Amino acid sequence: MNLAVKFCGLGVVTLCLSASLLASAAEPAKRKGPTMAKVLAASKPGDWRGLDLENTLYVEFASGRVVIELAPAFAPRHVANVKALARERYYDGLAVVRVQDNYVVQWADPDAQKPASARKIQHAQRTLPAEFERTLDPKLPFTRLPDGDVYAREVGFSGGFPVARDRRSGKMWLVHGYGMVGAGRDNGRDSGGGTELYVVIGQAPRHLDRNVTLLGRVVQGMELLSALPRGSGPMGFYEQAEHRVPIRTIRVAADVPESERSALEIMRTDTPAFQELIESRRNRREEWFQVQAGRIEVGNVPIPVRSKSAGAR
Amino acid sequence: MNLAVKFCGLGVVTLCLSASLLASAAEPAKRKGPTMAKVLAASKPGDWRGLDLENTLYVEFASGRVVIELAPAFAPRHVANVKALARERYYDGLAVVRVQDNYVVQWADPDAQKPASARKIQHAQRTLPAEFERTLDPKLPFTRLPDGDVYAREVGFSGGFPVARDRRSGKMWLVHGYGMVGAGRDNGRDSGGGTELYVVIGQAPRHLDRNVTLLGRVVQGMELLSALPRGSGPMGFYEQAEHRVPIRTIRVAADVPESERSALEIMRTDTPAFQELIESRRNRREEWFQVQAGRIEVGNVPIPVRSKSAGAR
Repeated sequence: MNLAVKFCGLGVVTLCLSASLLASAAEPAKRKGPTMAKVLAASKPGDWRGLDLENTLYVEFASGRVVIELAPAFAPRHVANVKALARERYYDGLAVVRVQDNYVVQWADPDAQKPASARKIQHAQRTLPAEFERTLDPKLPFTRLPDGDVYAREVGFSGGFPVARDRRSGKMWLVHGYGMVGAGRDNGRDSGGGTELYVVIGQAPRHLDRNVTLLGRVVQGMELLSALPRGSGPMGFYEQAEHRVPIRTIRVAADVPESERSALEIMRTDTPAFQELIESRRNRREEWFQVQAGRIEVGNVPIPVRSKSAGAR
Repeated sequence: MNLAVKFCGLGVVTLCLSASLLASAAEPAKRKGPTMAKVLAASKPGDWRGLDLENTLYVEFASGRVVIELAPAFAPRHVANVKALARERYYDGLAVVRVQDNYVVQWADPDAQKPASARKIQHAQRTLPAEFERTLDPKLPFTRLPDGDVYAREVGFSGGFPVARDRRSGKMWLVHGYGMVGAGRDNGRDSGGGTELYVVIGQAPRHLDRNVTLLGRVVQGMELLSALPRGSGPMGFYEQAEHRVPIRTIRVAADVPESERSALEIMRTDTPAFQELIESRRNRREEWFQVQAGRIEVGNVPIPVRSKSAGAR
């Protein structure tokens, strides 16, 4: 499949028009407009934002760094606790213990079930009241998707995160999708707290929405998680200790020397440029596409990330 | 996240009821019924079917075998051509050349663009007219999902494949989702034919529906593809030849000695048992779930596969 972005430049506009005329009468004409590549190229510095260093985690593996943007607007207590756990170095030396295909990567204390050897917590909390949803605050930015959703009344984006809203219940919540980070829990509603974190590596498991506290999103390094060998045990747990993937450290970005920080920018999700990006994905304008979907679901909208140097060019 | 299937056996029914009484008034009571594990355990031999050996491919890697069920009801010419290519050993010695995170794994002739060294085709076709959709045949089995879809008027399952239908256009088509197999193409509508095949390894790229000929689904061995290292080049292409993952052979199962065949069964998708399975996923009954979605999208319905020996137990 060749998905190279081939622009319809001036030289080939005629060709593009001819192709659309050849389409069967049943096919509507392709909607014109910029491709995502052109939307990004035309974006202004104000369409991007840096990461809040106090709400960014660096997860360091031997293979590299995974960068997580935390979502204090949706899970304030869990975010504070995960930062406290990072700052007391709770996570350092723990490991990825589970990789379930088309589902999640999860890291935890492998000895969590052994009272004698389980990692001790100093100041942070082991469990917290669930933060599965929050009160719908109409003042929070919300870029609503126009095409509906199978699971929720409204879906869109708020502050760089995929979000659902329900005016009837007066609630809003983060929704599961590729790269979303959540706090594992046992059967009890309030049995999570951030000591175990999981990252979605497959089809959005939307049935988990409002069942787990989501607290962030991987903005760089997904391939360090998604390409890990799948565990052969039930639910993808690694059966041999040597298969586990050690975590060197997890640090709050603000605590890392400036020279060692990842200089990233995220596209704002509350701008006309992001609306244009959504349109460029609802109706794909690249020459390759024969049929435009004319619709998009929340899990298929990318939230672009770039290096700061790319923005400065 | 502990998703262990913990049954509410007789001994703990009281506990389960108490828990539901404690739920807030805003939460509807959990719908009762069997979990998926119980649906599978209660299934009858007639709820399962073997694979049609003439429409099954074995893709052999050094790491193991990927089993693909072909979909001749939806892409008859592509299926016939892929089988012809396999039978003339076109694929043997080719390689996975592309792994794009959250998107696709693709294999092809790495030298396809070099006329001198490109693999020759003997009897099969290099390109075919597109089979993006087919005439809606109401006689084909169709288990419709009740919760709608963002992209299509109707979605459901037909013969073990995820399918969309549109009565207005009189068409039906296979839809993209995890493990679906399609024929890569260049920009031209009819430029594919099966020499390059891709497999979805991430969020269902539904915008590709009706843009590519889908022709099958991986029913075993996804983890051999999904855990491959991501390519660092544009669109996930491997930049160094040594990163490519060689394909030893691709064979039609009927051509493989019986002793070397994978003895698999697929759950039928046109039975009351499969309807029960869908219900068990729309409203998760495992104790872990606090909130039942009450809805499901096509990409989240599993189509169970088991070894024949499991069925015989």
